[in-house]
Amino acid sequence: MSSDTIVNHQVRLAARPDGMPEASDFALTEEPVPSIDAGQLLVKVSHVSLDPAMRGWMDDRRSYVPPVGLGEVMRAFGAGEVVASRHPVFAVGDVVTGVFGVQEYAVSDGSGVLAVDTTSVALPTYLSLLGLTGLTAYFGLFDVGSPREGETVLVSGAAGATGHVVGQLAKIAGCRVVGIAGGPEKCAWLTDELGFDACVDYREPSLGRRLAQATPDGVDVFFDNVGGEVLDAGLARLALGARVVICGAISQYNTVNPAGPSNYLSLLINRARMQGFLVTDYADRFADAAEELAGWAHEGRLRSREDVVEGSVADFPATLLRLFRGENIGKLLLHLR
Amino acid sequence: MSSDTIVNHQVRLAARPDGMPEASDFALTEEPVPSIDAGQLLVKVSHVSLDPAMRGWMDDRRSYVPPVGLGEVMRAFGAGEVVASRHPVFAVGDVVTGVFGVQEYAVSDGSGVLAVDTTSVALPTYLSLLGLTGLTAYFGLFDVGSPREGETVLVSGAAGATGHVVGQLAKIAGCRVVGIAGGPEKCAWLTDELGFDACVDYREPSLGRRLAQATPDGVDVFFDNVGGEVLDAGLARLALGARVVICGAISQYNTVNPAGPSNYLSLLINRARMQGFLVTDYADRFADAAEELAGWAHEGRLRSREDVVEGSVADFPATLLRLFRGENIGKLLLHLR
Repeated sequence: MSSDTIVNHQVRLAARPDGMPEASDFALTEEPVPSIDAGQLLVKVSHVSLDPAMRGWMDDRRSYVPPVGLGEVMRAFGAGEVVASRHPVFAVGDVVTGVFGVQEYAVSDGSGVLAVDTTSVALPTYLSLLGLTGLTAYFGLFDVGSPREGETVLVSGAAGATGHVVGQLAKIAGCRVVGIAGGPEKCAWLTDELGFDACVDYREPSLGRRLAQATPDGVDVFFDNVGGEVLDAGLARLALGARVVICGAISQYNTVNPAGPSNYLSLLINRARMQGFLVTDYADRFADAAEELAGWAHEGRLRSREDVVEGSVADFPATLLRLFRGENIGKLLLHLR
Repeated sequence: MSSDTIVNHQVRLAARPDGMPEASDFALTEEPVPSIDAGQLLVKVSHVSLDPAMRGWMDDRRSYVPPVGLGEVMRAFGAGEVVASRHPVFAVGDVVTGVFGVQEYAVSDGSGVLAVDTTSVALPTYLSLLGLTGLTAYFGLFDVGSPREGETVLVSGAAGATGHVVGQLAKIAGCRVVGIAGGPEKCAWLTDELGFDACVDYREPSLGRRLAQATPDGVDVFFDNVGGEVLDAGLARLALGARVVICGAISQYNTVNPAGPSNYLSLLINRARMQGFLVTDYADRFADAAEELAGWAHEGRLRSREDVVEGSVADFPATLLRLFRGENIGKLLLHLR
């Protein structure tokens, strides 16, 4: 490359992980920033979103989106600035979110790209509370979980990107909210700062007993991000007619033989339902929901927390592992310096 | 006992089974047939219903009904004739169904007792198609599964008491119906006699592959009576928006550590739901549903099959094991000679 060529550093999928992803599953590559064609825009990526779903995208199996191909740039949501445009809608200088991949520059045809206004809301918030993460909490809780005032809502992964929004939304809905999270720092934040009524630390012994103490009337809505033992513990606490929202299963994504919930017959005993969903199915209601979320945030009833790692695309593999180790509080983002 | 005392032979729960029930978990006892008080009736039991749910009643744990106490007569649905009555509704000679227990004579206060007309319908049918079994199929399929015309309905335990009714009801609803059953005899009966579109024998190898062949468009409603590997195989075939009806889990009732469905994340990928139910929640609609079932039976669109074992209450333990070994076709009943 000549010295005046701008280099696009990228992270590509080099191998399909067997269990927990390793650094060797990714390859750091570089290529010149490509020129754009008519109808395209070029985004200089500033923030890469790290999401549990990424682990599924790395496996070669049928799912709701095709897997990332070997040798392809790792798929990722992100945010950045338009630095070149031959697109009718987006102009140079626009700040945008979209699926830009783990790379410094992304060429896009504009599909799934959204221009955002950062004059009064910080850009990371558009990848968390006001992005797909917040919308996942919104539609999963309200549309799938259908909480009613006075009910008990249990959320696992409660200090995570989606979980901390779910709990606050359930408080807005007038529910008693119990979180399950890993460690005293997360639990203290949830109860002391975000208004959760209780938090159970799954890393301490006797999860079932402590969860029973925290949910004396049982659980009407269980929003599960975790799977495994945490899902089973929640199922054991279902109230009659409970709704279990399956949002994810971060505890199982890196296991070769995922465990199913052995307490699933609690669904029968309690005439309960367990339901999965994908936020993208609600796309025609995104604008209204985001406006409602922004309104609650503006009123101070809903707080967004991001865990922003400063680095370069080369830090992606290690940052992804932070997610699976449960080291993040709130939405995990990689800010490209 | 004096020689003119009528003896009531009974089966009582003697021990709580650890895994598969054994003969020693039951005690055969006898006592004089008691006299009845005002408001009571005495039923001479002719048929004892054998149901997978009985296994759960033998365990000492929280469920939708209290466990059978040690030393108590084993709980069972049944049918018989009223032989004495001081009850305002039931008269001597009435043929009735109810929860009479595994015994020859039952004293009842009339709660849950139903008088039936056996002039044109055989008594066993009131314990199968026109009893709780048929009602379980009716409400589980129609209310929980919500099948639409043209959809694919998968039913496991398809040759069992509930399963064979579910499949026929799904045909009436205009669905493509696939059964999972154990052995070629059951499968042949379901496809050749009852009109199932396909049947997969779970005892043969490659269940997943054969089920995929039988459900080329996926499964919209999965009515599961079995659990375990069969549940996982069905989950792997879910179509978008599928409904999984959890009616029972006969494969798991005798295992000390029940297996959860490791494919439960298929609910997420396919935006599907899994829901448990208890037929007793629909009691206020029993009469209408039974009338509809009887109408279809009368039209020849719905057939009931009972597997009637001739014997005495002493044959109860061995007959119960037939159920858990999958040896019955249709509703398993013990006819007391």
